[in-house]
Amino acid sequence: MDGVRFFADCQARVAVELISGRWSMVVLYALAEGPVRPGELREQIGGISQKVLTETLRRLERNGLVQRDRYAEAPPRVEYSLTAAGADLLTPIRALGDWAAQYADQLPTGNEP
Amino acid sequence: MDGVRFFADCQARVAVELISGRWSMVVLYALAEGPVRPGELREQIGGISQKVLTETLRRLERNGLVQRDRYAEAPPRVEYSLTAAGADLLTPIRALGDWAAQYADQLPTGNEP
Repeated sequence: MDGVRFFADCQARVAVELISGRWSMVVLYALAEGPVRPGELREQIGGISQKVLTETLRRLERNGLVQRDRYAEAPPRVEYSLTAAGADLLTPIRALGDWAAQYADQLPTGNEP
Repeated sequence: MDGVRFFADCQARVAVELISGRWSMVVLYALAEGPVRPGELREQIGGISQKVLTETLRRLERNGLVQRDRYAEAPPRVEYSLTAAGADLLTPIRALGDWAAQYADQLPTGNEP
């Protein structure tokens, strides 16, 4: 029983780490409706620099949540899209958003003493 | 639309921050079935020091996820339990656990380049 709990937590923590980057969830959301080209992605997401967007996409790609597709057109076209794992991660992310929408305003914040 | 996305993300990030501590989810899980005394809590959770357990409980209490109840018995009895916000947070945590159970093993890990 306690083992089950502890196991469940360790598993969940993997997911928490994957989405805990400052822009990870924003980028996953921006790809929710289908493949997007890098330029459009930056337009859609306000306030992200090109450097940070590139870093975030590379990390998500390395973590298996996002894939980069390169089409040999003229000029070559690049699109990013969610993998199956990335798309399914939107379910818990939305559950976190629902929770926060209900409780965030009434909670004290800050992890400092 | 993009505004909605971005808003949803900001809200979700509050929840991610609340559960991202090393032991936060373990302690929330350990309280899932009802109030627990601090000594039992430490027995149930393997590998947590008294100091870290106390710090985790205080942070969760400060964040409005856990409450501390003190009963004026002889000797005085202290129990910790989930608030409504803490109990409802188990839903997205379980969704993260379900996701991780399905995908964690097949994903590359590591946030380093």
